[in-house]
Amino acid sequence: MPGSEVRPYYVPVGNEEHVFKAAFRQGLSVVLKGPTGCGKTRFVEAMAYDLKRPLITVACHDDLSTADLVGRFLLRGGDTEWVDGPLTRAVREGAICYLDEVVEARQDTTVVLHPLTDHRRQLPIERLGVTLDAAPGFCLVVSYNPGYQSVLKDLKDSTRQRMVAIELGFPAADVEEKIVAVEAGIDHDVAAQLVRVGQAIRRLENVGLREVASTRVLIAAGRLIGAGLSPREAARAAIVGPLTDDATVTAGLVELMDAYLADTSSPD
Amino acid sequence: MPGSEVRPYYVPVGNEEHVFKAAFRQGLSVVLKGPTGCGKTRFVEAMAYDLKRPLITVACHDDLSTADLVGRFLLRGGDTEWVDGPLTRAVREGAICYLDEVVEARQDTTVVLHPLTDHRRQLPIERLGVTLDAAPGFCLVVSYNPGYQSVLKDLKDSTRQRMVAIELGFPAADVEEKIVAVEAGIDHDVAAQLVRVGQAIRRLENVGLREVASTRVLIAAGRLIGAGLSPREAARAAIVGPLTDDATVTAGLVELMDAYLADTSSPD
Amino acid sequence: MPGSEVRPYYVPVGNEEHVFKAAFRQGLSVVLKGPTGCGKTRFVEAMAYDLKRPLITVACHDDLSTADLVGRFLLRGGDTEWVDGPLTRAVREGAICYLDEVVEARQDTTVVLHPLTDHRRQLPIERLGVTLDAAPGFCLVVSYNPGYQSVLKDLKDSTRQRMVAIELGFPAADVEEKIVAVEAGIDHDVAAQLVRVGQAIRRLENVGLREVASTRVLIAAGRLIGAGLSPREAARAAIVGPLTDDATVTAGLVELMDAYLADTSSPD
Amino acid sequence: MPGSEVRPYYVPVGNEEHVFKAAFRQGLSVVLKGPTGCGKTRFVEAMAYDLKRPLITVACHDDLSTADLVGRFLLRGGDTEWVDGPLTRAVREGAICYLDEVVEARQDTTVVLHPLTDHRRQLPIERLGVTLDAAPGFCLVVSYNPGYQSVLKDLKDSTRQRMVAIELGFPAADVEEKIVAVEAGIDHDVAAQLVRVGQAIRRLENVGLREVASTRVLIAAGRLIGAGLSPREAARAAIVGPLTDDATVTAGLVELMDAYLADTSSPD
Amino acid sequence: MPGSEVRPYYVPVGNEEHVFKAAFRQGLSVVLKGPTGCGKTRFVEAMAYDLKRPLITVACHDDLSTADLVGRFLLRGGDTEWVDGPLTRAVREGAICYLDEVVEARQDTTVVLHPLTDHRRQLPIERLGVTLDAAPGFCLVVSYNPGYQSVLKDLKDSTRQRMVAIELGFPAADVEEKIVAVEAGIDHDVAAQLVRVGQAIRRLENVGLREVASTRVLIAAGRLIGAGLSPREAARAAIVGPLTDDATVTAGLVELMDAYLADTSSPD
Amino acid sequence: MPGSEVRPYYVPVGNEEHVFKAAFRQGLSVVLKGPTGCGKTRFVEAMAYDLKRPLITVACHDDLSTADLVGRFLLRGGDTEWVDGPLTRAVREGAICYLDEVVEARQDTTVVLHPLTDHRRQLPIERLGVTLDAAPGFCLVVSYNPGYQSVLKDLKDSTRQRMVAIELGFPAADVEEKIVAVEAGIDHDVAAQLVRVGQAIRRLENVGLREVASTRVLIAAGRLIGAGLSPREAARAAIVGPLTDDATVTAGLVELMDAYLADTSSPD
Repeated sequence: MPGSEVRPYYVPVGNEEHVFKAAFRQGLSVVLKGPTGCGKTRFVEAMAYDLKRPLITVACHDDLSTADLVGRFLLRGGDTEWVDGPLTRAVREGAICYLDEVVEARQDTTVVLHPLTDHRRQLPIERLGVTLDAAPGFCLVVSYNPGYQSVLKDLKDSTRQRMVAIELGFPAADVEEKIVAVEAGIDHDVAAQLVRVGQAIRRLENVGLREVASTRVLIAAGRLIGAGLSPREAARAAIVGPLTDDATVTAGLVELMDAYLADTSSPD
Repeated sequence: MPGSEVRPYYVPVGNEEHVFKAAFRQGLSVVLKGPTGCGKTRFVEAMAYDLKRPLITVACHDDLSTADLVGRFLLRGGDTEWVDGPLTRAVREGAICYLDEVVEARQDTTVVLHPLTDHRRQLPIERLGVTLDAAPGFCLVVSYNPGYQSVLKDLKDSTRQRMVAIELGFPAADVEEKIVAVEAGIDHDVAAQLVRVGQAIRRLENVGLREVASTRVLIAAGRLIGAGLSPREAARAAIVGPLTDDATVTAGLVELMDAYLADTSSPD
Repeated sequence: MPGSEVRPYYVPVGNEEHVFKAAFRQGLSVVLKGPTGCGKTRFVEAMAYDLKRPLITVACHDDLSTADLVGRFLLRGGDTEWVDGPLTRAVREGAICYLDEVVEARQDTTVVLHPLTDHRRQLPIERLGVTLDAAPGFCLVVSYNPGYQSVLKDLKDSTRQRMVAIELGFPAADVEEKIVAVEAGIDHDVAAQLVRVGQAIRRLENVGLREVASTRVLIAAGRLIGAGLSPREAARAAIVGPLTDDATVTAGLVELMDAYLADTSSPD
Repeated sequence: MPGSEVRPYYVPVGNEEHVFKAAFRQGLSVVLKGPTGCGKTRFVEAMAYDLKRPLITVACHDDLSTADLVGRFLLRGGDTEWVDGPLTRAVREGAICYLDEVVEARQDTTVVLHPLTDHRRQLPIERLGVTLDAAPGFCLVVSYNPGYQSVLKDLKDSTRQRMVAIELGFPAADVEEKIVAVEAGIDHDVAAQLVRVGQAIRRLENVGLREVASTRVLIAAGRLIGAGLSPREAARAAIVGPLTDDATVTAGLVELMDAYLADTSSPD
Repeated sequence: MPGSEVRPYYVPVGNEEHVFKAAFRQGLSVVLKGPTGCGKTRFVEAMAYDLKRPLITVACHDDLSTADLVGRFLLRGGDTEWVDGPLTRAVREGAICYLDEVVEARQDTTVVLHPLTDHRRQLPIERLGVTLDAAPGFCLVVSYNPGYQSVLKDLKDSTRQRMVAIELGFPAADVEEKIVAVEAGIDHDVAAQLVRVGQAIRRLENVGLREVASTRVLIAAGRLIGAGLSPREAARAAIVGPLTDDATVTAGLVELMDAYLADTSSPD
Repeated sequence: MPGSEVRPYYVPVGNEEHVFKAAFRQGLSVVLKGPTGCGKTRFVEAMAYDLKRPLITVACHDDLSTADLVGRFLLRGGDTEWVDGPLTRAVREGAICYLDEVVEARQDTTVVLHPLTDHRRQLPIERLGVTLDAAPGFCLVVSYNPGYQSVLKDLKDSTRQRMVAIELGFPAADVEEKIVAVEAGIDHDVAAQLVRVGQAIRRLENVGLREVASTRVLIAAGRLIGAGLSPREAARAAIVGPLTDDATVTAGLVELMDAYLADTSSPD
């Protein structure tokens, strides 16, 4: 959200804004660790706003190549013309470059970051034969979800040790209620019910859920209620459905939900 | 079936139309879960008709790349020219974009959807260096069959939690009879016989069938009957043949069929 | 054999011609199941002749891509020009499109067939940004050999349930004798001897043969006899040699052959 | 050796010339089975000479694609121009096309051969949108070494059953002596010694040799003797060295050789 | 840092400068072995400065191809134009070419180095059909981290034996304190506290850390302190966060840190 | 080293020069077997000098394709132009073509060599549609290290049996002393010490060394001594460092070295 005129809505959970700004001032790179849907993207948007830097976001994936980040030659009018990738644009403009879910990228993507993340702050572009010095204000931010890591997909130690780590989690109940109410545009009581459902699910153990209910799905449920669904219909579609495909687990979650949700409309 | 003048024939099973329209109004993405041949495609066509949005469908597969969805440069007259992919067209036109069997696609395809499925509703096109805001009315719908999921092919949790889930199943017997009769153009009694065969097969356990008989194969059997085959010939070709290659299982299914089907024409 | 003036020689084994024509009239797709060399290709040729449709055949393989079926851009005179693939040609011309050994193709090839095999009868060509409606008379036929299936190579259930199945096997002895005599141009007695060898081999169990002797190899043996080889020489080269590389199995098959074949010429 | 004026030197081992010519007359394809270095290439050259057909040979390998066999578009003067591959040239010219070690090729290569090997005798060229009828005299010959086959690399049954099989082995001692003497240009006594060494090695069992000494290596040893090496030096370099890297096995083979070879020159 | 006017800050640990310069004078290649963050890059920069050679650095990765090192043809104005890669530039200019984390590169990358690392000192460029003699002053330096090696990723012996090995480790405490103080711009007492934390972590065994705290992370912690964070906040973000994602290990490291760090500001 | 005016320094170990020249005269191909650093490259250079043939060397690797050896079309001025690869150049010019570490190449590379290594001495260039006859003097030489072979990477038997094998090993002590003294430019006593170290290491068993000390590393140590390092410093950097990364093995090798090396300068 570069150039947005109002601060993106972000409520801090701990000292994360403090640490981020210190790293930024020192030209250090940042790795954000935290579960799905806890607000990592929104946090970076808020920091970019506060620090008055443009934000360039790249969603990482298996096929993201170095060329996708750095740039490539394209054929234009019979000639080849270099087109900067998002990382190169950020290096030239002094932007914050946010690589979302960086472990999804191939290792060549992360190794190309190394000279940017140590004292050199340089981006060598081998195909152009040039080495760019990062403009002041350039800051590299990557995120990943520690719960997903496997032997095959992990950040290399030589990459991790080049970054300052910030851990993000789900906010405390009162903060989360405020966020859900504001983001979904629903009243505080309904938001509080949804947060209690979310927290009950987060306390579950050994029921075969790979992930817990995130703040994001609570907001989605709130928005469905805002669009006229009953709380139970909304929670089933936005919270239970995304969490599991298993019929037994679904039944358990629905029962748990019913204990928390007042339902005055059409039964499911 | 964009622009069709009559509503595609779809009989609701539960509150799925209600939930879909609420998600659409809130700009939320939708994941349809359900078995092969239960009518997911037809449901999306009906929703597009009701909501007066064009529908762009993409059948996902192993080699579907981000470029296939987003677009690519093609060489035209010695110059490279950008050609929008189906997702980009849907984003520009405010269409419903339906990714059928999304888990077949490579993960890069699903990760590229992320910025479209959260508060940003944006499609970054890295090769053009632009970020599109989705036009009003754009809605992303994906489908998958939970029975097929494996460790290798599954929707990532960070993708699932960005979507509202709607579960579809086979319709109740009376509804299915009506659907088979209408779609195959056969009389109600024959349709009822076919539905009873389908339901008997769905009740079988541990006979080595990977899938049960779908509404789709019942309709196909009905159409073969309409083209002059006996019910037993039709059911063998359209129901049993697609379900198994095993001789013993075939014999069992044929015996089961015979109990339900009146057969007045040529023996098999 | 599109446009052939005489009907391709095909002797029906069961009701397969009846079922095929019913499926054709209903616009349903067909999957032919049967062992190597039982006459699947010839059957499709005969059906195309009877139904007066052109026939476009594609031999599927591991590297057959969607582009090979649908079409691609080629560089012509400095410009890119679209060239239809065989599937697209069949869709435009209302031809029968026969995908031989379809399980050899990559899954993307089979998924691209889906919209052609349900009520839509459409071929979306993503690279052109168009969706073709199949011309009347278009019919999709695929074949596979159930004996070859493995976990890795199988037709997806969602593909199978879109098709009417026809099982083909080896013909009865009297039919097969007639076929061998006609195709190899040899007299009926020699053909009968070869068919007896073929049937004896088909009755063998547990001797390490991966396939049994097909009608095709019996015809090849007949043709070698027609070219002057003794029956034993011919059967060894055309029947035993293709079936096994193992010396012990070879000796067993030769002994079995000797019991059935009169041999009046040069010993092997 | 197309167009050679003298018949390539080939001494028949059994009825292989008889069978080959019968298959050729019937337009059937041929698979040659036999160990490394037994003379498969030379046999095909002699057949091409006798049958007065040009010979086009392709050494198959892992990366041999269909395009390498059939042809491809090349950029010429800003335009794309089709260039026939060796298989297409053979089909047009009525040549014998010999695919050496065909199991090394990818399966797409062997599947593309199917329409050429049944009653159709056609080569569909999908990228040109044409189907060629094979010219009279076209004959497809493939070779493979049964000793090398594995689960991963084998000829598919549906391919094998389209071909007449000819098995080749090492010739009898008197024939092999003549071949070695003629090919290496050495006198008969030395050739006889080398053949005795070869046969002794072929009788060995369980000594860790993956292959036995072929006629080819005996000829190479003869040629080194012709160039001035002692028989023991020559046999060590041309026979033992290629057969094993193991020091113990080497010592055993050298001892065995010494029993058969008169050695009058420099010790090793 | 080619052309820098002040010597890069590097404090020697042993005889590494001595050995490097002897190898350089003899035209021998060098392999640097050492853990993440011990100063390998800085050491090479200091050597390039002392020896007055330009330095060309390449961060190696999985997709680094020979062409990326040696050069490639690019399309320019309708013609292909050769563009030197970084290795070729170094060979022509007599520069030091530093391949960082060379084992990450594919083996083709390391094999292409062979003729440069023996008596030939040549770079064959097969696509140009030329062989370059290395200019005087050219020196090849590669680095790797022995702790990372696996069966799959290791330097081939034939590559290792072409190089002089220099082992680098973490500096002694007094040297490391000086480095941390200078690099982070903090006073000596704080630097000493951080080094004691680092050394305590390096003494830990069996706590599930894949890597120990490097000099690099101690410097990063120092820089965060310089930017206003408390020592504990800084150490948690720059030292603990990068080392582990595990909650129990994190708690243990935080407790260990607390024993060494005076903390006068906001608690974490 | 084509065209060099003095004979490359090579001291024969056995009858290898004799065998090589006999194979050359007979137009036979040669496979050199021997450990890393024993002088295979130098041997081929000396043979090329003696036989007055140009030498073309190719370092083989995983990604070396047939096109890299044979040639490819390049785009020049809007047209495609064929550029010979090194093998084709050697075939045309009658050069010695040396494929170093041939087992590193993909199998397609070795199969393309087959017609060059039997009686045909031909190189078919499929993309040009031509078959080249090798010019007189053409000789194919390949090398490999038997110690490295695995199931995955080995020379196929059908390739091995097309070549004359020459085994090379480390020279006897007196010969190696002379080589080390001449190549490193050091006096004979120091060279003799280094050779004693090398031989002691070669006698070690079961200490976890994958390779022994080659003549090459002894020469490198000698050159470091010539550049001013003490023998112990030199041997540690050039001999021990390349052989092992293991601390215990390093300590053992250093102790062993100390027993053989007089050390008068700076301790390590």
